[in-house]
Amino acid sequence: MDPQQQFLDVLDRDEAERRFHAVIQAAPLEAEWVGLDQALGRVLADDVASPVDVPSFDRSNFDGYAVRAADTYGASEQQPRRLTLTKETIATAVVPQIAVKPGCASTIATGAMVPKGADAILMVEHAEMREGELFLHRPITPGFGIAFAGTDIARGETVLWRGQSLTSRETGVAAAVGITRVSVRRRPRIAIISTGDEIIEPGHTMRPGFVYDSNARILADALRELGAEPVVVGIVSDDHEHLRACVQQGLASYDMVLLSGGTSKGAGDISYRVVQELTDPGIVVHGVALKPGKPICLAAHHGKPVVILPGFPTSAIFTFHEFVAPVISQLAGHSHVPREKVSARMAFKINSEIGRTEYLSVHLVKSSDADTAANVSADKELIAYPMGKGSGSVTTFSHADGFVTIDRYVEQVEAGAVVSVQLLG
Amino acid sequence: MDPQQQFLDVLDRDEAERRFHAVIQAAPLEAEWVGLDQALGRVLADDVASPVDVPSFDRSNFDGYAVRAADTYGASEQQPRRLTLTKETIATAVVPQIAVKPGCASTIATGAMVPKGADAILMVEHAEMREGELFLHRPITPGFGIAFAGTDIARGETVLWRGQSLTSRETGVAAAVGITRVSVRRRPRIAIISTGDEIIEPGHTMRPGFVYDSNARILADALRELGAEPVVVGIVSDDHEHLRACVQQGLASYDMVLLSGGTSKGAGDISYRVVQELTDPGIVVHGVALKPGKPICLAAHHGKPVVILPGFPTSAIFTFHEFVAPVISQLAGHSHVPREKVSARMAFKINSEIGRTEYLSVHLVKSSDADTAANVSADKELIAYPMGKGSGSVTTFSHADGFVTIDRYVEQVEAGAVVSVQLLG
Repeated sequence: MDPQQQFLDVLDRDEAERRFHAVIQAAPLEAEWVGLDQALGRVLADDVASPVDVPSFDRSNFDGYAVRAADTYGASEQQPRRLTLTKETIATAVVPQIAVKPGCASTIATGAMVPKGADAILMVEHAEMREGELFLHRPITPGFGIAFAGTDIARGETVLWRGQSLTSRETGVAAAVGITRVSVRRRPRIAIISTGDEIIEPGHTMRPGFVYDSNARILADALRELGAEPVVVGIVSDDHEHLRACVQQGLASYDMVLLSGGTSKGAGDISYRVVQELTDPGIVVHGVALKPGKPICLAAHHGKPVVILPGFPTSAIFTFHEFVAPVISQLAGHSHVPREKVSARMAFKINSEIGRTEYLSVHLVKSSDADTAANVSADKELIAYPMGKGSGSVTTFSHADGFVTIDRYVEQVEAGAVVSVQLLG
Repeated sequence: MDPQQQFLDVLDRDEAERRFHAVIQAAPLEAEWVGLDQALGRVLADDVASPVDVPSFDRSNFDGYAVRAADTYGASEQQPRRLTLTKETIATAVVPQIAVKPGCASTIATGAMVPKGADAILMVEHAEMREGELFLHRPITPGFGIAFAGTDIARGETVLWRGQSLTSRETGVAAAVGITRVSVRRRPRIAIISTGDEIIEPGHTMRPGFVYDSNARILADALRELGAEPVVVGIVSDDHEHLRACVQQGLASYDMVLLSGGTSKGAGDISYRVVQELTDPGIVVHGVALKPGKPICLAAHHGKPVVILPGFPTSAIFTFHEFVAPVISQLAGHSHVPREKVSARMAFKINSEIGRTEYLSVHLVKSSDADTAANVSADKELIAYPMGKGSGSVTTFSHADGFVTIDRYVEQVEAGAVVSVQLLG
């Protein structure tokens, strides 16, 4: 190993991203049809237009009486208006048979179809029944208590959009317009290979100088959280031929190959040596001005991305979210989803190295009460406390509430400065 | 149908919750062991303590040289210190064989074991190699560049807690301490039954007076999002015997029975009539002072919850989140997770009915820039715009960014008041 040879071409973060995206194919994957009961979490490949009006008929919003609004004008406590009930009691799921004539009203259930002639619903609690006649004490306006056909969703209206991630709210809307299948993007399938002579699988006995492979687990589950399908190849250590075969197999079968560990140029760093053999174009970035995450290696082969993440867990997961997650989102067909951020005040002054983008893991703590409207409680102000541990730590990322990105041209963040914290977990 | 008989006993929201929780068994379900690769999204049934130190040995954080810090004291550009390299180059996964004596240094890789005698790591970029000897220009302190055994995680330390929901961050920590299986709570299994003569399944042809069943889909997927397993029984309309059999089957096989539609006391409302037959204790709440959601019906049979949600989609999903979701969390063994909220200013004055808790669906819009530290961007202030549509709307809940809960004693929220918005989706 000649440590002097490492990272000769450390790039700026944005330049690294540009070079990587210039050589990868990250268009959305092909579409496939799935049943709506399998659609949760998938990404829509096409807009969905409603084939029906919702509601599909003029619908009563209340239990009460279908009336002509004009018949209620002038009604008051002193001078109640009197209406005659028709013989019809309109339940749900039936088409009313009797039109409501002037001076008449039909009993109607919530969700039932408004009969011809009627243009408003008198709520049951606003009327009084005496000897088969209805007395009302206040006027109502035309349209009151009626959901008119198509007012919630009009036939032909776009109700869901290409690139939307389907939560229960979206699958509910699809069901409401009567749809049973949706066209979604195939999930990206990503090969995960762990390297490093010192890496052993969880469950095996710890030996001096070794560490458990946590990157395979965290990357696989982080990929699942992004809607991708991880394929955990396992640990490949000191066997160059075997690692080459695994990378080739990954390129042939999956949408991306993700290695972790062995990013150095040293002789012991098998990942780098194997990925270095790739062509068209092979490695385009090796070393980025990031803290943590400097040794990341970005490559491609005929448009398919190959990434070597640093072996240290915190470095691996930050560079994953910085360089890999956006590509997964593109492959998955997601429309751009801004990451969730909150504002906080920095607890104390932070010095950062000029020329290097720094990700500062922080704890968030609520400060004293902020102003609130009476009885409507509001959030407290947040204070960001930087965490102490380095990139080798397993716990920094898992215990942090979020992180602050300190721009490469910023040397100091003052105590009390308002910063934007990207939330984790 | 006699509409006059409905909702004779409308309860306050909190009193309704108290009565419901007094009669249901909502203790965490039994624990089961799952492989770590199946653990994502599950809830821990027990604390997890680390069986190992992490790192398990004193580990180098850098590529560089293992030295005695005392040998570096006084080093400067003018007076560099000179060290003699040992014959050993320490790679990862090996136990160093040569102790570092005063005046000496061993080449070491990132992640490798620090040799005996050495107490600091000189980074490769801070030293110069000339003719087999090492020249250094600055002093370092003892411990610099070393992650000492157990400093990230100590053996026996609790690393994950009972009641935690496992994200990729937690599964990564479990892998890092060498664990392959975790004890998690069984997922709650919930029967979902849709009722209402006017309800038809998506995929069937729309007929006059009918509506597609969207509640079964949104409830099933909302349950999945909470980590439960929905069992969609389907639509049961005008058949009392059949619905009774479905409810009995649900009580016998699942952890909760969730009906939607037919909450009224009227003759057409089969759900109420069937649930009314339950004993020990049967229905404890029918009608709550909520908008939307008033007709909700809460019941139990021998501790097992039975809930009839209102048929209108927006009412169903609000009352689901208010009364059902907390029970699911308890059954799933979640430790209390506060719902995610943001502060916003109300766009205009809102009048609300005294005595009724109101859920106001809102759109959130960012206002003009707030103060930020230079180059570290922060959030803008949020403005909450109430949405217009009622509880019969399918789109209100799916299009809203969140909702504001207006307390039952609050009659007005002023324009510009700071309110707490519970985020959706």
